[in-house]
Amino acid sequence: MKACIIVLDGIGDRPLKKLGNKTPLEAARRRNLDYIASRGINGLLHAVDIGIRPGSDTAHLSILGYDALSTYTGRGPFEAAGAGIDVKPGDIAFRTNFATVDKNLVVVDRRAGRKIEEEEKKVLEELINSVNIGDDVEIIFKTTLDHRGALVLRGKKLSDKISDSDPHEEGKRVKKIMPTANSEEAKRTSEILNELITTLHKQLKALKINEKRRKQKRKEINMLLLRGAGKAPRYEKFEKRYKLKGACIATVALVRGVGKFLGLDVINVSEKASIKELGELALKTCEKYDFVILNIKHCDDASHDRNEKRKIALIEEIDAMLASFKGFIKENYLAILGDHTTAISRGDHCAEPTPVTIAGPEVRSDNVEKFTEREAAKGALHAIKGNHIMPILIDLLNKSEKFGA
Amino acid sequence: MKACIIVLDGIGDRPLKKLGNKTPLEAARRRNLDYIASRGINGLLHAVDIGIRPGSDTAHLSILGYDALSTYTGRGPFEAAGAGIDVKPGDIAFRTNFATVDKNLVVVDRRAGRKIEEEEKKVLEELINSVNIGDDVEIIFKTTLDHRGALVLRGKKLSDKISDSDPHEEGKRVKKIMPTANSEEAKRTSEILNELITTLHKQLKALKINEKRRKQKRKEINMLLLRGAGKAPRYEKFEKRYKLKGACIATVALVRGVGKFLGLDVINVSEKASIKELGELALKTCEKYDFVILNIKHCDDASHDRNEKRKIALIEEIDAMLASFKGFIKENYLAILGDHTTAISRGDHCAEPTPVTIAGPEVRSDNVEKFTEREAAKGALHAIKGNHIMPILIDLLNKSEKFGA
Repeated sequence: MKACIIVLDGIGDRPLKKLGNKTPLEAARRRNLDYIASRGINGLLHAVDIGIRPGSDTAHLSILGYDALSTYTGRGPFEAAGAGIDVKPGDIAFRTNFATVDKNLVVVDRRAGRKIEEEEKKVLEELINSVNIGDDVEIIFKTTLDHRGALVLRGKKLSDKISDSDPHEEGKRVKKIMPTANSEEAKRTSEILNELITTLHKQLKALKINEKRRKQKRKEINMLLLRGAGKAPRYEKFEKRYKLKGACIATVALVRGVGKFLGLDVINVSEKASIKELGELALKTCEKYDFVILNIKHCDDASHDRNEKRKIALIEEIDAMLASFKGFIKENYLAILGDHTTAISRGDHCAEPTPVTIAGPEVRSDNVEKFTEREAAKGALHAIKGNHIMPILIDLLNKSEKFGA
Repeated sequence: MKACIIVLDGIGDRPLKKLGNKTPLEAARRRNLDYIASRGINGLLHAVDIGIRPGSDTAHLSILGYDALSTYTGRGPFEAAGAGIDVKPGDIAFRTNFATVDKNLVVVDRRAGRKIEEEEKKVLEELINSVNIGDDVEIIFKTTLDHRGALVLRGKKLSDKISDSDPHEEGKRVKKIMPTANSEEAKRTSEILNELITTLHKQLKALKINEKRRKQKRKEINMLLLRGAGKAPRYEKFEKRYKLKGACIATVALVRGVGKFLGLDVINVSEKASIKELGELALKTCEKYDFVILNIKHCDDASHDRNEKRKIALIEEIDAMLASFKGFIKENYLAILGDHTTAISRGDHCAEPTPVTIAGPEVRSDNVEKFTEREAAKGALHAIKGNHIMPILIDLLNKSEKFGA
């Protein structure tokens, strides 16, 4: 008996006038979503809590049963884990941009022309990972998409209570990193990083790849901008907490990072995998694991682009994929839910809850027959929070601990 | 105007294929349960919280309005209170077994033959209660059913952070009690108990009742095994908290223990009382008290035995008994609820909520007309937690304090 959570990223929405006051989910053809909802127990899911507008990282943390409100320090640690860094509790993690600055350290291009060749990335990673900033602090760096990357500072007496070096605007000077708390650790971390930035600036300028770029009239990569310092929290590993061997499937690095950070096996998958391929991979992975969480990012992207037609088409693509899960719920438990609402009208995440359905052999199914925001509200789960999902699934798997006698 | 809670122990269930996907509650004839639900306000009750699989002790604590999650230290103190010991906050309480060990202290029978005569029990209680283990620590011991008993250690500088002496298996040696926390109190408590166990072993062997047992080829009672140490929590007494004179009726010692521990008057009742007798006793007790909680254990036992036919028959017996409460709700408030789901398929407690109905003169009744898991989900109480019950009842009794002006 396995459990699978399918997270339909950004699936929830607000009613749209151009859809006759329906949400995209209400407007879409939903044969299999409705099939599963009608066999499941339904409700509304507040990933973090009522009225809280979650990010993908905090929502996934909550859905996996961890307390995001009291532990979340920023996306840095999850981004770094998603980039492939083996982030450890206590590490200070940053998101980074390669940028172009002039001789006065004024940012000319926050993305250094955006396009960075794989060979260039290799050289840049080698350089940054070899910088020596003292015996007791280690630097770990990975590039990600285009000009983006993740940097981790590992050592004792470090703090994430420091400001960004990234001025977040072109035409402004690279900022000196400052402590934002009155502590020795914050002061020390700022000093280490300011020295690192100066050293790196010199070494980057001297790289052969920049010589070549200058010849090609391409923007020089001569600055590493740091932002969003976050100290990696300490979480009990998923397998220890739930006694389940778990896997995470996601095309988006941030969600992979959450999975990796909690000790889930992150399954290798192309960033461009289709919805059908993701569904097939999830079912295949369920054969080898007790638990699988699959993130399907597509609808969220369409919502950020404010493209309701595309969102509806993607919902229908998800619906078609779900035909292959109709057999799964005969012997296993499946939760389909959203991590948050992403309203077409806002082009961003909203606090409204999303539908959730849990189906499987011994579920007390209710009378809900549609997987939509407004029908789910009538279900027997009522309104639950993200971190209720795992306890409910664990109990349905008959693996929960009894509290009391 | 009185309030009565009837706890139908383990009443909730999961849908059963052999009942056509109905739960036992759905399959049973429910004339009076439905009568009361249709006049009441209904909902689902999570005794402790969503996804938490409660024991009977933690569930009853919660239903009586106390915070089990932050105060529960184990069943020991409630078991001891149920056995008749006047447990006080700070007491360290254990569950005990009389056992038979060989000369190397290897357990030969964890139950010393199970059957212990009333006369033997008297001798054993006298012996253990008279053991001297120092001026500042008191020992209180009571036998319960068969070989079972409860022991309380009372004094200053004691801790429940210690291991069991019970090896939990025959053929293994009695374990030395060890501190499980690095504290003086835990070390001291372990030492006291190890000395107690050695002293008792010698004194038990020398008892005349054992001489007789040896002659009769019965197993000697020469060891007291200790397990499940728990420090009795400090709770505000029920009457002080709610300004109600309250009584508790239960055939099961653990629930009587919870009632006694919270300062409720525990009404004398046979362990073998019928459902009809329990109902009559509750109504009679309501004449003398402001508040009565009645536990009806029967359905839980049937669920643990995975006997759905028996569970249905017992539900119908409860239903018949409830005819006598139809008059009660004209002038008083009655809450009927479960402490937890005990699924026939699992043979144990589950985390799923149970139905709850509250009926009485001024209840805002809803449209629910059946006392079942799935109909209750549609009620106006939505989903509530165990510790919401008492505040709701107190308010219906017009005895709640105003919070604010």
